[in-house]
Amino acid sequence: MTDAVQQKEANTRVAWIAGVGASAGLGAALARRFARGGLSVAVTGRSRERLDAIVAEIERAGGQALALPGDVTIESELAAIARQLVERGTLEVAIFNAAGATRAPTLDLSAGQFEAAWRVTTLGGFLFARAALPPLLATGRGSLLFTGATASLRGRPPFAAFAAAKAGLRSLAQSLAREFGPRNIHVAHVIVDGGIDGERLRTSAPQRVAERGPDGLLDPDDIADAYWYLHQQGRSAWSHEIDLRPFNESF
Amino acid sequence: MTDAVQQKEANTRVAWIAGVGASAGLGAALARRFARGGLSVAVTGRSRERLDAIVAEIERAGGQALALPGDVTIESELAAIARQLVERGTLEVAIFNAAGATRAPTLDLSAGQFEAAWRVTTLGGFLFARAALPPLLATGRGSLLFTGATASLRGRPPFAAFAAAKAGLRSLAQSLAREFGPRNIHVAHVIVDGGIDGERLRTSAPQRVAERGPDGLLDPDDIADAYWYLHQQGRSAWSHEIDLRPFNESF
Amino acid sequence: MTDAVQQKEANTRVAWIAGVGASAGLGAALARRFARGGLSVAVTGRSRERLDAIVAEIERAGGQALALPGDVTIESELAAIARQLVERGTLEVAIFNAAGATRAPTLDLSAGQFEAAWRVTTLGGFLFARAALPPLLATGRGSLLFTGATASLRGRPPFAAFAAAKAGLRSLAQSLAREFGPRNIHVAHVIVDGGIDGERLRTSAPQRVAERGPDGLLDPDDIADAYWYLHQQGRSAWSHEIDLRPFNESF
Amino acid sequence: MTDAVQQKEANTRVAWIAGVGASAGLGAALARRFARGGLSVAVTGRSRERLDAIVAEIERAGGQALALPGDVTIESELAAIARQLVERGTLEVAIFNAAGATRAPTLDLSAGQFEAAWRVTTLGGFLFARAALPPLLATGRGSLLFTGATASLRGRPPFAAFAAAKAGLRSLAQSLAREFGPRNIHVAHVIVDGGIDGERLRTSAPQRVAERGPDGLLDPDDIADAYWYLHQQGRSAWSHEIDLRPFNESF
Repeated sequence: MTDAVQQKEANTRVAWIAGVGASAGLGAALARRFARGGLSVAVTGRSRERLDAIVAEIERAGGQALALPGDVTIESELAAIARQLVERGTLEVAIFNAAGATRAPTLDLSAGQFEAAWRVTTLGGFLFARAALPPLLATGRGSLLFTGATASLRGRPPFAAFAAAKAGLRSLAQSLAREFGPRNIHVAHVIVDGGIDGERLRTSAPQRVAERGPDGLLDPDDIADAYWYLHQQGRSAWSHEIDLRPFNESF
Repeated sequence: MTDAVQQKEANTRVAWIAGVGASAGLGAALARRFARGGLSVAVTGRSRERLDAIVAEIERAGGQALALPGDVTIESELAAIARQLVERGTLEVAIFNAAGATRAPTLDLSAGQFEAAWRVTTLGGFLFARAALPPLLATGRGSLLFTGATASLRGRPPFAAFAAAKAGLRSLAQSLAREFGPRNIHVAHVIVDGGIDGERLRTSAPQRVAERGPDGLLDPDDIADAYWYLHQQGRSAWSHEIDLRPFNESF
Repeated sequence: MTDAVQQKEANTRVAWIAGVGASAGLGAALARRFARGGLSVAVTGRSRERLDAIVAEIERAGGQALALPGDVTIESELAAIARQLVERGTLEVAIFNAAGATRAPTLDLSAGQFEAAWRVTTLGGFLFARAALPPLLATGRGSLLFTGATASLRGRPPFAAFAAAKAGLRSLAQSLAREFGPRNIHVAHVIVDGGIDGERLRTSAPQRVAERGPDGLLDPDDIADAYWYLHQQGRSAWSHEIDLRPFNESF
Repeated sequence: MTDAVQQKEANTRVAWIAGVGASAGLGAALARRFARGGLSVAVTGRSRERLDAIVAEIERAGGQALALPGDVTIESELAAIARQLVERGTLEVAIFNAAGATRAPTLDLSAGQFEAAWRVTTLGGFLFARAALPPLLATGRGSLLFTGATASLRGRPPFAAFAAAKAGLRSLAQSLAREFGPRNIHVAHVIVDGGIDGERLRTSAPQRVAERGPDGLLDPDDIADAYWYLHQQGRSAWSHEIDLRPFNESF
C-alpha cells in the first residue's frame, strides 16, 4: 500500500453495519445505501461468504466495502473489529441490525431459546454499542442506529422470546440516546412494522409475499433510505424513533 | 393567461400548507422547503401580509408560491381554497401546521379558551383534512402531514387545553392514516419535541433561546427537511410518526 | 327537615357521577357501587326519567341517591349542580362517564358531528372537572375519575371523531393528575377496552353479545369495582391509568 | 399429620411469591397481604433467614406461610419449588417480584453486569412463569402478576441495564397475557413509579426518604393492595397494566 493510499484512508468515513446476511436482506441494503452515500462500509455477520458477496457487489458498483465477519454476542470479536475500523478511517455511523427470533408457544420455549433470542438481539446490541461508541465519540459526531420491529412495542405469542428481546433493545436505544445525544452522537431506533421483502420471507412464506401485492412488504432499499435520512438529520432536529410500514399494512 | 401557461399549470404539482405565519417560523420554512423541491406552494394563514412576504421570498428564490389567506376553523374558507388549488395544479402534499395554545392553570382556563385551542388545533386539522383529501385522492397519491408537539403525547399543566387539542389531532392523524394509507395517501404526524428557533420564542423568551446554545432549539429548516423526507418515502415503508428534538434536549 | 337530619347531611359523603343513563349501563352501575360503599350518590344525565329510576333502585336497596339532571356541555348547569352537591354534603368523588360517539368514514363526518363528539366527551370532561374540583379541593381529598375507551389510545376509522375526543379527554386527565395529585385529589383514567354488557350493546348488537360468551363483554359491575378500588387506594400508591378488558378479549 | 389436616391442605389455596427479601420490602408486604386474604403463602428468595422471618411473622398473625428458598435464575430450583407447591394445595396466584439493578454510565457497564440484570429480571420472570403456569392451568384459574418499574417504560442512564431488563419483562407479561388470558389466567403487570418506602431506600438513601414527606414514597402495603385487587377482579374486566405512584410524585 502506498503512502498516498494510506493518507486517503485516514480520511475515509466509515459505516459499520452488524447483522448483515443475505444480499436480499436489510443488512445488505443498508450497506449498499451507505456505500452509495460515499462511506466505506464495514459489514459484520456470521457468514464470510455472504459478506464477501456483498462486498463484491458494492465494489462492482464503485463503492468501498470490507467484510469483517464476527459474532455480535462475543465481546472480543466486536472489539477486534472496532480496532480494524479505526485503522481504516473515522467511524461515522454504526448500525445494529442483528436479531434472533424463535417462534413458539411460550410454554414450549426452552430457557435456552429464550436466552438465545436475548443474546443476539439485546446483549448483541449492548456489546455493539460498547464497541462502536468509543470510536464514534473519538470522531466527535455520528449516528448509532438500531433496527426494531413490531415486536419491540408489543409482546405477543408466539413471539414472546423475540418480543422481550426487542423490547430490551428498544429500551437500551433510549438509554443511549439520552446519554450520548448531548455528546453529539445521534442514537435512533427504527421500527420495521411489517414483513420485509427479503430472502427470508421469500423462502419461508412465498405465498404471503405474493398475497401482499406490490409494495405490500417493506422493500429493504426503502428501509435503508430511512437510516440514511436519520444519519443526515441536522442535530437541531434529531429523531429518536421512526416507524416504517407498507402503505396498505393494517396497524 | 395563454393556453401554454394553462397547460403548464395543469401539470403543476401543488403543496398546500396551512398554519403559515412569521417568515421565521415553521410554516414558512415548510413552504420554502417544498418550493425548493419544485412544488408550487400555496400558503394559508390568517395574515395576508405575512403570506405575501413569504410568497415574495420564495419567488425571489426562483420558486412558485401563492398566498391563500383563510381561517382553518371555517369550513367554507378551506373549501374555497381547495377549489383554487385544484385549478392551479394537482395537489400532492397538504400540511397542517396550525395550532392554538393557551398557557394557564387548568382552573383558570375558561371554557372559551379550552374551546379555542381545540377549534384551531383539532377541528382545524379535521376541516383541513376534509378539504385536502378529495383533491389528494383525485391525484391518486400524496401526503397529508400534521405538526404535533411534546404535548401531543403528554397532558401537563399549564398546557391542559393545548395538550388535549394536540392529543385529539394526533388521534385524528392515526385514524386518517389507517383509513387513507391503503388508498395511497401517506398520512404522518411529526412530533416537534422542543422549542422552535423561530420568531415566537425569540420574541417571547429571548433568554431561553440564548441559554439553549447552538442547535439547542429546533431549526425550522431542519424540521422542514423531515416533512420533505416523509413526502419522499417509498410507499413500501411509510412512517406514520416521527419525533424531532435537539441533540441536547432532555426527554 | 329536623336539625338532626340536617346535621347528618352535613356529614354526608357525596359521589357525583355524570353520564348516567340506562339502568343497565356503566353510569348506573357506578352509582350503585358507590351507594353500596356508603356514599350519597348524585347522578347526572340528560334523562330525568332514567335518573329517577336509578335513584329509586338505589333507595330500595337502602342507599342514598339524588337525581340531578343536566347537560355536561353546559357550564351553568354543571355549576348549579355543584352548588346543590355542596349543600348535600362533602364531595368525595366525581366521575365523568359521558361520551358522544359517531360512527362513520371520516370524509362522511360533518363538522357538526366531529364537534358534537368533542363537546360531550372532551369539553364535557373539562367543564365537569372545573365544576367538581373546587368542592373536592374544599373537602381536602377525593377522587376525580374519567371513563376512557380503546379509542382513547388509538385513532381508527370509523371512529375518528370519537377517538379524537377520547384522546383529548385522556390528555386532560393527565394534566389534571399532574396538577391536582399534589393537592391530594386522585385523578385517574379508566380504559374500558372492549364491549360493555349493557343496554346499548344488547339493543344494537345482540348477536355480538351472544357470540362473546360468558364474561366476554365487560360487566358494568366489574368495571364499577375498578372505580371503587381507585377511590380506596392509599395515596402513597395511586394509579393514574388502568385498563379493563374481558379475559378472552384480543388486544 | 392427621387425615383431617391432609384433607384441609388439599383444599388449601396457595399464593407463590418470588423475590421476597427484607421484611420491610415489597415481597414481604405481598406475602402478608395474600396471607391476610386467606391464602397459604409460599415465599421464595435467596435468603432462608429472611424468608423464615417473614413466615414467622405471618404465622404469628394467624396466617399460613412457607419458606421455599431458591434462585429464580435456576430453572431446576423453580421446578422443585413448583412441585412442593402442588403438594401443599392448589396454586391460585403467582407473583414475580425479583429484579436485579445496576447503576452505572452505560459504557462503564460490563457485559456481565448487563447480563446479570437480565438474568434475574427477565429470564427469572420467564422461568418463574414457566414453573407457575402449569399448576395455575391445572387449577383452572388464577393470577400471574409481575412487578414493573418506571424503568419498564423508559430507558434512561444510569439505568440502561435495569431498564432493558424491565422492558423485556414487561413485554413478556404482555405475551403471557395474550396467550393465557383466554385460558382463564389473569396476567398483569404493575408499574411501581417511584421509590418504595422499604429497607433498601431507608438504608441507601435516608435523606431522600426524609425529603419526600408523608406518603411521598410508596408504602409496600399500599402496593400490595393493588396486587390483591388485581387478583380479585372479575374476569369480565381484567386489568393488564396498572401504574402506582405517590400522590405528589412528578411524572
